[in-house]
Amino acid sequence: MRNICLTLAYDGTNYCGWQVQPNGTSVQAVVETAIKELTSEAATIFAAGRTDAGVHALGQVVNFHTASGISCDKIRSGLQRFLPDDVAVRHVREAPPDFHARYHATSKRYRYVILNSRAKLPFVERYAYHIGRRLDDRAMHDAGQVLVGRHDFRSFESHYPNRSSSVRTVSELTVARCGDWALWAQHRPSEIAAASDGDYVFLEVEADGFLYNMVRSIVGTLLKVGYGSWTTETVREILNNQDRDHSGATAPPHGLYLVRVDYDDLRRETPIDSPAGS
Amino acid sequence: MRNICLTLAYDGTNYCGWQVQPNGTSVQAVVETAIKELTSEAATIFAAGRTDAGVHALGQVVNFHTASGISCDKIRSGLQRFLPDDVAVRHVREAPPDFHARYHATSKRYRYVILNSRAKLPFVERYAYHIGRRLDDRAMHDAGQVLVGRHDFRSFESHYPNRSSSVRTVSELTVARCGDWALWAQHRPSEIAAASDGDYVFLEVEADGFLYNMVRSIVGTLLKVGYGSWTTETVREILNNQDRDHSGATAPPHGLYLVRVDYDDLRRETPIDSPAGS
Repeated sequence: MRNICLTLAYDGTNYCGWQVQPNGTSVQAVVETAIKELTSEAATIFAAGRTDAGVHALGQVVNFHTASGISCDKIRSGLQRFLPDDVAVRHVREAPPDFHARYHATSKRYRYVILNSRAKLPFVERYAYHIGRRLDDRAMHDAGQVLVGRHDFRSFESHYPNRSSSVRTVSELTVARCGDWALWAQHRPSEIAAASDGDYVFLEVEADGFLYNMVRSIVGTLLKVGYGSWTTETVREILNNQDRDHSGATAPPHGLYLVRVDYDDLRRETPIDSPAGS
Repeated sequence: MRNICLTLAYDGTNYCGWQVQPNGTSVQAVVETAIKELTSEAATIFAAGRTDAGVHALGQVVNFHTASGISCDKIRSGLQRFLPDDVAVRHVREAPPDFHARYHATSKRYRYVILNSRAKLPFVERYAYHIGRRLDDRAMHDAGQVLVGRHDFRSFESHYPNRSSSVRTVSELTVARCGDWALWAQHRPSEIAAASDGDYVFLEVEADGFLYNMVRSIVGTLLKVGYGSWTTETVREILNNQDRDHSGATAPPHGLYLVRVDYDDLRRETPIDSPAGS
């Protein structure tokens, strides 16, 4: 059996999340259906991140096993034909037989996008959280540095305890204001010249793993800093108190993107395919 | 009566175009309804550009007369409450009594966005024309320079003759490949460092006026250059022949944006509102 690794992008708006659920359509279900249409085999796919309802992905990584001999390039175009417009196959590669998209992920990167302008912008209605009140993005970035490193993040986990351990290592957390920066670009905010008068505030966070609702809880907490209600010290206390009741509200899902997933044994995953024909 | 000037952004996907039509919902109708809800007066609005079905706007400019004493800022937030999510009021200002958004416009700027990557990207499905085959954007830009200046553009007009004159002056035409450039930014491509490996190809064109389907005909023509089928000379011949049958197909509407409209007697219109609170 071959082990096929896909990089997917999807608009999560119309889905109940990644995982198959009793109610609603899951991204997993439409991808499994497309695989069955293409290969005539039932396949179970394993995803790096089980994104929640309404959460988007630029670089979700999944794998599945197949006896099919179809080339990777034909799998990409073939699956796309059976997928709805809001799910795209960005990349297909052959993985080692024991590769598992979830268990072998060494780090993941999420992005949270806020449209921070008085007026709305229709095109990002489903893709960014609109906040009319001006945010202090510098203060948010500074306070966010408290969370970088190896910590028990149970203060930022919904329904604790639901995993064996709530200790995770955040390797980077950036909050930046950007104007002319594509929402769906590969680049990290740190590589982009910050635009102090930009209309978007991005939070990007990379960690070896994430707890349930962790990014959205962090966003809710740092928003309180952005509004001037809380300080870096408040965030430090929240982290140390290890009590979810004290952290900020969970930010809405439609601003959140799974940007990329990294593995030791695969080339660094790129969420966006290389340009056409190059 | 006051004369109120609005800058609007809208997602044209679900509309039959700007103008009130027998079938379908027009952007004009939903804005007029919102004005009536807010001011309790029936108002007719005049728009700078009568965008077609499916065409978007970042900076459509319209005006209407009202006896209402509501402040501009309250008009902005008030209208937004009565508008659907796909229409946004970006800016409101008081205009001179005789100001007319259409007749006083001195120039307009349109943008056409192409996603030029093998794989699709769900988020821009409705906002960019997807072309998998690699385009030669340099050749497109060079050929496009033939169109800059004062010319009879009837070769690029649908249903000629439908205006008194098909002579227009194109002051700028830029084709550029960009990667990390927001689709809905104010900047012009010329102000952006071109990314030779970017996934988007933008065409921007500014003129003192546009004929029916002119931008989309120009895009269709330059696409033939981008594919390598036509040259700069072909474009020159098409312009000189003054025959619509020889130019390229009309590109689909969903890649097209009315970016901004300029007036002599008003400050240069900005499509995107200034950042919140600044």
